[in-house]
Amino acid sequence: MISLNPQEYLPQISIDCVVFGYQAQQIKVLITKLDFDVEFWALPGGFIRQEEAIEQAAARILFRRTGLKEIYLEQFYVFGSADRNNKAVMDQLFSQYLKEPEKERDKRDSYNFLTQRFISIGFYALVNIQKVMPKPGEMDKQVEWANLNELPPMIIDHSEIVDKAVQSLRKDLDNKLSAFELLPETFTMRELQELYEAIFSKTFLRANFQKKMLSLNVLDRLEKKYTGAANKAPYLYRFKK
Amino acid sequence: MISLNPQEYLPQISIDCVVFGYQAQQIKVLITKLDFDVEFWALPGGFIRQEEAIEQAAARILFRRTGLKEIYLEQFYVFGSADRNNKAVMDQLFSQYLKEPEKERDKRDSYNFLTQRFISIGFYALVNIQKVMPKPGEMDKQVEWANLNELPPMIIDHSEIVDKAVQSLRKDLDNKLSAFELLPETFTMRELQELYEAIFSKTFLRANFQKKMLSLNVLDRLEKKYTGAANKAPYLYRFKK
Repeated sequence: MISLNPQEYLPQISIDCVVFGYQAQQIKVLITKLDFDVEFWALPGGFIRQEEAIEQAAARILFRRTGLKEIYLEQFYVFGSADRNNKAVMDQLFSQYLKEPEKERDKRDSYNFLTQRFISIGFYALVNIQKVMPKPGEMDKQVEWANLNELPPMIIDHSEIVDKAVQSLRKDLDNKLSAFELLPETFTMRELQELYEAIFSKTFLRANFQKKMLSLNVLDRLEKKYTGAANKAPYLYRFKK
Repeated sequence: MISLNPQEYLPQISIDCVVFGYQAQQIKVLITKLDFDVEFWALPGGFIRQEEAIEQAAARILFRRTGLKEIYLEQFYVFGSADRNNKAVMDQLFSQYLKEPEKERDKRDSYNFLTQRFISIGFYALVNIQKVMPKPGEMDKQVEWANLNELPPMIIDHSEIVDKAVQSLRKDLDNKLSAFELLPETFTMRELQELYEAIFSKTFLRANFQKKMLSLNVLDRLEKKYTGAANKAPYLYRFKK
């Protein structure tokens, strides 16, 4: 069960992270099973240390779960309704917690800290899924990848946080090319298109997609990718440094 | 001098608002002179009550300064570096505060609340400048409109908050048509173009601008605006409801 020193953290502010990966034409999201009395799925989250910038806090929270030191992170929204951590949910989570015989002072302190109202800052991260070894943090029983379209019911407003992260990613892709973080170093135009189609949940016309991507002038064309198959060998591309 | 009951508010989280208005081809920003020992200009800001959503808090903070009940608000970024309220700045602000003979308990509480580290949630607002009567809030000596390009030096990172708000507004304008909030109900195409030019700090080609705006299919064309001048009378437009 979670035990923390409330003095070390900003009170009533949490961070929740939507970590996107991409594999087998599926957008994946990293989710954790919380180490509470009742089993709940949640986004990897945590709190901000008093001496830490919020971006540092998000990076630390994700390093713990992914092993990645350098991680592409964007803050995208603050979830701040007054009733997001409502008392009923909190009581369910902590139903056994204070009934245990050893109600030590630090448990009581953790309980008081964790059952307050929290506003949560949402960050999304884009990672190369091959490089991640999911690992439980101090608040998790289990951490794993799930398909974006098949997420289990999640605690509080975490499903809404995922939806908002997807919207933000789509919007940001119009301005930036951050999607490349999700791909291996080299890829075919078709693989790039499949990634965009997975993110936007729609299909694009091949000729239009290729024209648009090439017009951005951010791709280096490399050698052809010979697969031995009968069809025409496609070019490999790499994101310009 | 500021005195507040810290129990009523979330600790270590503030809200700062960048209120944009538009007048005489100038983008304006609402700024306040803080009611501190040392005079500082700042953005209209405040704190979040325990029972209040963050958007409600921002609306309350701005209602107090603008008299507007319905206000177009967008949260755009969280400013969360660990040293943004550094001790030196805080000591300067409060230099006289605790030296006063009446060091009542509530002043000490306010002081302890206000001199903590704060992360700040940035909201921008778009208002029809004609409808606003700037009025000091409980923390202000004075509230007024200043030209975006001629803002005085501001406290902590408030200049950076303004810059980020401008960037966010520009980005949002590509997806939404929120800029209409800044205009009177009817306007000419030229007035709309001047507004966009002021926001983006650049000029657009008249034909291209008109074509783009009309293609969005969000404008109702009304009667011509006869000014009595010799040049051709322009059409008036209105944003479709």
